[in-house]
Amino acid sequence: MKRSVNVFAPATVANVVCGYDVLGFAVNAPGDEVIMRLRDEPGVIITKISGDEGRLPYDPAKNTVSLSVQHYLNHIGRPDVGVEIELFKKMPIGSGLGSSSASTVAGLFAINTLMDSPLSKMELVPFAMKGEEMACGYGHADNVAPALLGGFVLVRSYEPLDIIKLPYPEELFCSIVFPQIDVPTRDARQIIRSKILLKDAVVQWGNVAGLVAGLYTKDIDLIARSMKDVIVEPVRSILIPDFYKLREIAMENGALSFGISGSGPSVFTFTRNEDDARIINEKLQKHFLWLDTESIAYRSPINAQGPIILD
Amino acid sequence: MKRSVNVFAPATVANVVCGYDVLGFAVNAPGDEVIMRLRDEPGVIITKISGDEGRLPYDPAKNTVSLSVQHYLNHIGRPDVGVEIELFKKMPIGSGLGSSSASTVAGLFAINTLMDSPLSKMELVPFAMKGEEMACGYGHADNVAPALLGGFVLVRSYEPLDIIKLPYPEELFCSIVFPQIDVPTRDARQIIRSKILLKDAVVQWGNVAGLVAGLYTKDIDLIARSMKDVIVEPVRSILIPDFYKLREIAMENGALSFGISGSGPSVFTFTRNEDDARIINEKLQKHFLWLDTESIAYRSPINAQGPIILD
Repeated sequence: MKRSVNVFAPATVANVVCGYDVLGFAVNAPGDEVIMRLRDEPGVIITKISGDEGRLPYDPAKNTVSLSVQHYLNHIGRPDVGVEIELFKKMPIGSGLGSSSASTVAGLFAINTLMDSPLSKMELVPFAMKGEEMACGYGHADNVAPALLGGFVLVRSYEPLDIIKLPYPEELFCSIVFPQIDVPTRDARQIIRSKILLKDAVVQWGNVAGLVAGLYTKDIDLIARSMKDVIVEPVRSILIPDFYKLREIAMENGALSFGISGSGPSVFTFTRNEDDARIINEKLQKHFLWLDTESIAYRSPINAQGPIILD
Repeated sequence: MKRSVNVFAPATVANVVCGYDVLGFAVNAPGDEVIMRLRDEPGVIITKISGDEGRLPYDPAKNTVSLSVQHYLNHIGRPDVGVEIELFKKMPIGSGLGSSSASTVAGLFAINTLMDSPLSKMELVPFAMKGEEMACGYGHADNVAPALLGGFVLVRSYEPLDIIKLPYPEELFCSIVFPQIDVPTRDARQIIRSKILLKDAVVQWGNVAGLVAGLYTKDIDLIARSMKDVIVEPVRSILIPDFYKLREIAMENGALSFGISGSGPSVFTFTRNEDDARIINEKLQKHFLWLDTESIAYRSPINAQGPIILD
């Protein structure tokens, strides 16, 4: 049995433009790392957190990583096991890129590995959702499921939980720009209207169906045509300065799609190759600079593996 | 060049439970037949209509078949061509099975055949939609597209029109029962609320995405799990006597799903084989009889071809 393990878990883009609360995918970068070591007494403790600028709690009863790891240990009937956790935040908090998911998934994958993997990745999803509930008051799966399973994921239903892995064209590339403005997930959810027009919903589920069809048939044009959001984006885009100008810049530079990652403020595009993603990132960052806003850019293919054990 | 042609076009099930206004499929039976003959002078005339109990107009300016055929001739620059049409209604009107679509599609396929097929079936869709607009005040495509193309069809978008053929498991069988009660399409549309809850819409597009994924992977269980409608059915089901009891009967007898076909009052199920479809039809018809309601039952695999030329 291993005594310690070092795990990386990926950032994720939830919603994916037309699939509010049901679609998400993982990227190779950024992501978080966790080093976990068994210790001789019970209890989950956190010995180190870096990269969080002091924003995350060391208190095991308040940190989502320790909480979900303890929840897991209780569930598998091993509350006697104790571990110490070092958390290396290698991605920004509050970016809309599933930051808490990445940490939680890294922690759960680490403890499951140390326990000789009694649960599958799919079976870990509810534990990670519990972590999400603690992090942002809402136990959603559209970040944790792709972070755990890798790839493109559909959360068909929450009750009962029904998660489906979707295929995707391997050439699909993703560019992400995180403008350093503050948009708490709670606020981003609250500004969305609770009632919508049926005719808008019909447009949306036509597009969700089109996106899923495009993913199965690896039809890049259909994917691009389907990635429109007439419901959430018109509201959330007001939180991101110059959103429609940014879209114009992205689309003019070869983006297949442009939208908000999760609840924002990160924006992302799909492109046909890495070069397009790089150029789009440069142009979007330049525009943010012109708006006096610092930003961080990432580019990646869709991540296929989910969490991995590092050397 | 042919001087006359005899065409069959299939009935269709629109909405398919979770895909209101975006999904539809065709069945082998019932359907309508059209015999069309070129004549020596311009103008589209109707010389015979049978099976409609006198409900359809002979006036070419009022009949959707003649209107859409004339619209087609004008569009291809052949207003000089004249035809006479015999329409054999072999399915009930106002059943929710795309009755007007079947007639219109048969007429359009017939005239296109007589003109040596200048347009593809996909290109005929807008002409058939025009017919639907005249028949029920709303130019939808979820009946005419599957009636023309056969199979399972997604109408991703109306503006621009974007229609995608979906695969399906070949063993899927469909049972249909039409209770002879009157539910005009216009009324069935009007009782639907124009505003819905976002949380219901999320459930719905999770299911639409799940159904499309199930069709691509031919995963019968996923198809069955996804076929739930939390938006339209709760309202429209009040138009069908004992709807939830009928569902119970269908599900207890092996149905994968149960729902309203189009705007009703026909109900349909998917089953794994013809035997289940037959037994379900018997049980549902028996229940309708107990409700003092006459009904007509059909069963069919999903129709693959759309319209066909008869000998």
